[in-house]
Amino acid sequence: MIDGPAVTVAEFETPALLLDLDIMEANLASTAARLRERGIALRPHAKTHKSAEVARHQLDHGAAGLTVATIGEAEVFARHGFTDLFIAYPLFATGTKAARLAELARRVKLRIGVESVAGAQALAGALAGANGPAPAEVLIEIDSGQHRTGMQPAAAGELAAACRSLGLDVAGVFTHGGHGYASPGSGPGAAADEDAALWSAAKQLTGAGFDVREVSAGSTPTAAFPGSHITEERPGTYAFNDRQQLVLGSCQPGQIAVTVAATVVSTTVSGQAVIDAGSKALASDRPAWLTGHGAVPDLGGAVVMALSEHHGLVDLAGHSAPAVGTVVTVIPNHICTAVNLFDRYTLVRSGQPAGTWPIEARGHLS
Amino acid sequence: MIDGPAVTVAEFETPALLLDLDIMEANLASTAARLRERGIALRPHAKTHKSAEVARHQLDHGAAGLTVATIGEAEVFARHGFTDLFIAYPLFATGTKAARLAELARRVKLRIGVESVAGAQALAGALAGANGPAPAEVLIEIDSGQHRTGMQPAAAGELAAACRSLGLDVAGVFTHGGHGYASPGSGPGAAADEDAALWSAAKQLTGAGFDVREVSAGSTPTAAFPGSHITEERPGTYAFNDRQQLVLGSCQPGQIAVTVAATVVSTTVSGQAVIDAGSKALASDRPAWLTGHGAVPDLGGAVVMALSEHHGLVDLAGHSAPAVGTVVTVIPNHICTAVNLFDRYTLVRSGQPAGTWPIEARGHLS
Repeated sequence: MIDGPAVTVAEFETPALLLDLDIMEANLASTAARLRERGIALRPHAKTHKSAEVARHQLDHGAAGLTVATIGEAEVFARHGFTDLFIAYPLFATGTKAARLAELARRVKLRIGVESVAGAQALAGALAGANGPAPAEVLIEIDSGQHRTGMQPAAAGELAAACRSLGLDVAGVFTHGGHGYASPGSGPGAAADEDAALWSAAKQLTGAGFDVREVSAGSTPTAAFPGSHITEERPGTYAFNDRQQLVLGSCQPGQIAVTVAATVVSTTVSGQAVIDAGSKALASDRPAWLTGHGAVPDLGGAVVMALSEHHGLVDLAGHSAPAVGTVVTVIPNHICTAVNLFDRYTLVRSGQPAGTWPIEARGHLS
Repeated sequence: MIDGPAVTVAEFETPALLLDLDIMEANLASTAARLRERGIALRPHAKTHKSAEVARHQLDHGAAGLTVATIGEAEVFARHGFTDLFIAYPLFATGTKAARLAELARRVKLRIGVESVAGAQALAGALAGANGPAPAEVLIEIDSGQHRTGMQPAAAGELAAACRSLGLDVAGVFTHGGHGYASPGSGPGAAADEDAALWSAAKQLTGAGFDVREVSAGSTPTAAFPGSHITEERPGTYAFNDRQQLVLGSCQPGQIAVTVAATVVSTTVSGQAVIDAGSKALASDRPAWLTGHGAVPDLGGAVVMALSEHHGLVDLAGHSAPAVGTVVTVIPNHICTAVNLFDRYTLVRSGQPAGTWPIEARGHLS
């Protein structure tokens, strides 16, 4: 059985996204302390929480700045006073996106990912801008084994040189060792891959005359095992954790800070309880190594085995059927996409309701 | 190869949700005409589009009212002037939900689903309300074979009698033949199951002295085959269609009204193109009988084989790699959950951009 957070479920309307502030703060503190001891900067990925309040707590715990995925997310955090942002994504910015990016670069310290000449050309055009040049640094994205995006390390120097000839300021290299999610136990190997690939790429850049100021890696499964060449880690999920991280071994049950509260609405099918959290509250993400769509600790670790949009079908697995109207909490498989479905957090402090926080950057996809 | 809508992709920021108004209107008209010929009312499920403008078009094409999934959705449509709403969900409404429901019932003609005594008791309490009784009808939910929620037909009369003794006005029965999504070809059988189960339940109610005024079925795969006892159909996806409906055989390629426009951001991995639409734009829904997460007609029917939050990994399947910066349109697996991730539609009329519509009911989960 997986234990959930010890919240007193009070009067609120389900489905609701519960954020236990005590657990979140402990998560932020422990990861920050671990990286600080190693002399590695922490730049949390804000795509997980999309919240200015959570981001402020991360900076209060010593984060160097924020990572975001889109120009829109960067704009939201800039509007809320965050001044050091890395868009860790191979943007292709033309048209209005180019104008928005240039405007952003004039207001905050901005870093942007690059992994193709075409992307670099668009970026150089965007930053040259109609209103004169806008300052930004670029980091070359490296493929450390996920095979999603990024240059092979041996080709990094060539792309960096192309960036330089386009007038871009290359500050270093970055990667996302997403293959740390391949299966439980993959984290340490993926972290070693991140370190090796980035170091190989960094040497290419140094050899081509670049001053490599940042060697940035990150994901929650790999950030626990930072390699010796890493200068910065960019985990996101560590703030909240989720069922994936539990099964991967990246967190303990007591470190689950966000859950979805749901009401049992039906028990007409034997062995099954239906809750009012479906794919529009839990999201449908499910890696091949995980069965079902969420754990229900209140029902002895029963699992949400199928989702409709507003129905979660819980296989009771021998647990007695709860009464219709019972409120339970669910640990979603992937908290980033679940958070993305809500407009606000329902806060819990010391087991008691403690107000709400908006999820300001939700829906800022472009 | 699956053909996409013939849109001229113009200047907009990706990922974007494109709604082809010509195709949507043809979809609304053809389904409305088919049901009208049969003398069956159409009460479209608005959870698909969550848009007041789309709903207005549905009523203009003769829809009798709207179906919604939550009190929050009903509130949004009531605010936009819709006066005949069916919450086709076994609500458990207490506390603030009860107060909201009573308030809603005073403003619009409201129907609500019931499938348990506990749910009926809560509902009766809600409608009795602090401000005097609020009028609403209830429909008894019947399980016609999906085995998600709903009473067995033989038990429908007993629940209806319990509702009556609680002071609720039982207007009939409803079901969702969701097992029409089980695999391609399941639609006609599930539609026959809907008809048989509802008729069996209706006879129970008639035998118990009820005036059965509504026998309501519905899903896009089954609504094409309405049984002889059905008085009302509640399809949702038919307005837009999606990759699931294509493969199920519920629509033709020329009937796909909504797609996600995305930009190719990476081609560094051989045989793969990465687009800026991931699980936060396409949603991760995938039935067992469908491979991948979306079709890309512009790339010869290549398929989005894997999703990160902001990356769609397209297996080019022999198609030549598109240039970074190319804009493509994707047909999502399940349009209801994809729409739910956006704040607005980017409209297309006669292949040209035609403004935007807000998605007003998005996020109204409770």
